Amino acid sequence: MFEFTVDATSGAARVGTLTLPHGAVATPVFMPVGTQGTVRALSPNDLRAVGASLVLANTYHLHVRPGEPVIEKLGGLHRFMAWDRPLLTDSGGFQVFSLEGFRQMSEDGVEFQSHVDGSRRTLTPERATEIQWILGADIAMAFDHVVRGGADEATARDAMERTVRWLGRCRKRHAELTASASCRQTLWPILQGGAHVELRLEGLRRILDLAPWTGLAIGGLSVGEAKPVMYGMLDALEPRLPPASPRYLMGVGFPEDLVAAVERGVDLFDCVAPTRNGRNGSAFTPDGPLNIRNAEHRADPRPLDDTCDCETCTTFSRGYLRHLFVAEELLGLRLLSLHNVRYLIRLAEDMRAAIRRNAFGPWAEDWRRRYLHPGPA
Amino acid sequence: MFEFTVDATSGAARVGTLTLPHGAVATPVFMPVGTQGTVRALSPNDLRAVGASLVLANTYHLHVRPGEPVIEKLGGLHRFMAWDRPLLTDSGGFQVFSLEGFRQMSEDGVEFQSHVDGSRRTLTPERATEIQWILGADIAMAFDHVVRGGADEATARDAMERTVRWLGRCRKRHAELTASASCRQTLWPILQGGAHVELRLEGLRRILDLAPWTGLAIGGLSVGEAKPVMYGMLDALEPRLPPASPRYLMGVGFPEDLVAAVERGVDLFDCVAPTRNGRNGSAFTPDGPLNIRNAEHRADPRPLDDTCDCETCTTFSRGYLRHLFVAEELLGLRLLSLHNVRYLIRLAEDMRAAIRRNAFGPWAEDWRRRYLHPGPA
Repeated sequence: MFEFTVDATSGAARVGTLTLPHGAVATPVFMPVGTQGTVRALSPNDLRAVGASLVLANTYHLHVRPGEPVIEKLGGLHRFMAWDRPLLTDSGGFQVFSLEGFRQMSEDGVEFQSHVDGSRRTLTPERATEIQWILGADIAMAFDHVVRGGADEATARDAMERTVRWLGRCRKRHAELTASASCRQTLWPILQGGAHVELRLEGLRRILDLAPWTGLAIGGLSVGEAKPVMYGMLDALEPRLPPASPRYLMGVGFPEDLVAAVERGVDLFDCVAPTRNGRNGSAFTPDGPLNIRNAEHRADPRPLDDTCDCETCTTFSRGYLRHLFVAEELLGLRLLSLHNVRYLIRLAEDMRAAIRRNAFGPWAEDWRRRYLHPGPA
Repeated sequence: MFEFTVDATSGAARVGTLTLPHGAVATPVFMPVGTQGTVRALSPNDLRAVGASLVLANTYHLHVRPGEPVIEKLGGLHRFMAWDRPLLTDSGGFQVFSLEGFRQMSEDGVEFQSHVDGSRRTLTPERATEIQWILGADIAMAFDHVVRGGADEATARDAMERTVRWLGRCRKRHAELTASASCRQTLWPILQGGAHVELRLEGLRRILDLAPWTGLAIGGLSVGEAKPVMYGMLDALEPRLPPASPRYLMGVGFPEDLVAAVERGVDLFDCVAPTRNGRNGSAFTPDGPLNIRNAEHRADPRPLDDTCDCETCTTFSRGYLRHLFVAEELLGLRLLSLHNVRYLIRLAEDMRAAIRRNAFGPWAEDWRRRYLHPGPA
């Protein structure tokens, strides 16, 4: 039920099939982010229409609102948000460590203040695992200790080592919960270690020594460090990652990051960029990002992206989309979010096709030439 | 091309077919309002899915932003907003008279300040007609002088008489514009006269004396007067309205107003209530309005309205919809707007069926018993 097969490779880039309880996912894959149980401005029908095969939701946010008991009463997260394809829940580690206001860390877990009502809450590896079991996503993530991008070696080591200890506790609790229904959910570890290559390699060894895993996530990148740091880290990790496991680079990313990471053997991605940028009027196109608010689009009859098959691009002109943004109409937020999600899903489709042709390198070069150095639109 | 046939009656209530350049419309009909060229939070596909057959857009708003030259360049209003079914444009009279800030009336027209950029603009009967011709809706409305609901007889007479004089000017300009393409657009007059029955009857005679019309609108009701005043006015007007013309009650309304007005022979309606109330979390149901933010809906697995066939009701629980509103998620605004528009369109469908059975009276009594005096949900 949690199989992964590598179907084709081109250099380090791979095409794979990840089989989950709610369906199969072709990789490389981009996961739209439904933080609060909804991908902002999009409906499940929209997500199906743009080809989303796996959606991410957030344990911290759903725990503080509406609370997992409500979601359990309403039939679990799939039914709650009316998404019948695979789901992955992030553990809440990243959110807890990103919170402003009160937060107290101990070996046991983290006490923090809810951003919704200020109430004191505690998340431990066991609680995060239990909440995710109740939510019922296909993939649960281990509860991790995240440090900021520029953390020094001692701080990053402390967090990495705690994350590994917590991983053992998550695994134990998850094994208890899944004893009677193991086919319903799998648990993936998260590799931390900041920008320190040796730490990351040590963390990886300890994670792999702990148990066999059905997948592995790389956390704590794309958190403010320079892009070459992330690319260098992926280069260093790739030869040590088990080839038969899917690799999930958390919180990434922008189109150029997806291409660079696939080139370095990554299989799964999630990011709020397509929806957040869409709501700000920024659209991905093959010629780089475009801001639909710009006056040049005022009477432009062309679609946002004439290579795109989404509802936005096949239905509306740039002039109309600009009008929606200038007039502050809600439909604009939806239409640009829809296009941007479709853009990243098509980008993953295009990458899969290039890998199958064993031509990922030249494809990526062509893609970058157009995306990063666009000529006149 | 602008035919109207009455297909069945039940008392004063009528079922009809209005044939327009972009398609046929079954009446009674509710028109969703797309003020700025978009029905707020809904896409054209959404509108088709809920059975919308006629949509209203606003001349004033589209004139000040993006301006009719932009819409003309982008292929006219139908193409601009990607709506291939019939459209009606309001003339802008109501909006100009509702504006806060500078406004100067003369016999020629109205000078006013754009609410967007403060620029001085002038609308005259001729300009309003020209703008609507450029927009290209199936039905254009005459430019009218609107007074507030409680206006005294002298003020209401002045406005009614000016509206009739302006109607003559609109008609002349429209005839010039349509000389070469008369099948593209028709022009409907608007009856004013405030809450003064004699004034309304005089206005109606003068409008009907002026020309044969393909339809007639009743303006200046539902603008703050008590409901019995509106119902009384409709009772007084109905016997004098030409039976072969469709009757459009502007800005109405709530479900109970639609039922009362259909009972009094009205055929067309428009109102922002379903979308505005939907964005505020208020949903129409057969048992009266429901506020989805209420705590009682927190873990309720039932749909908003278990008689409804819309995407919202067939897909999501009240508990999930409440979560979307409490968490301030954009999808909630869309889903309640969608349901409310579908509710009014189904209400019109139900009324048509009752009229065809010649049983409108008993149907309306049953409907009111449930809607206005709901038992426990």
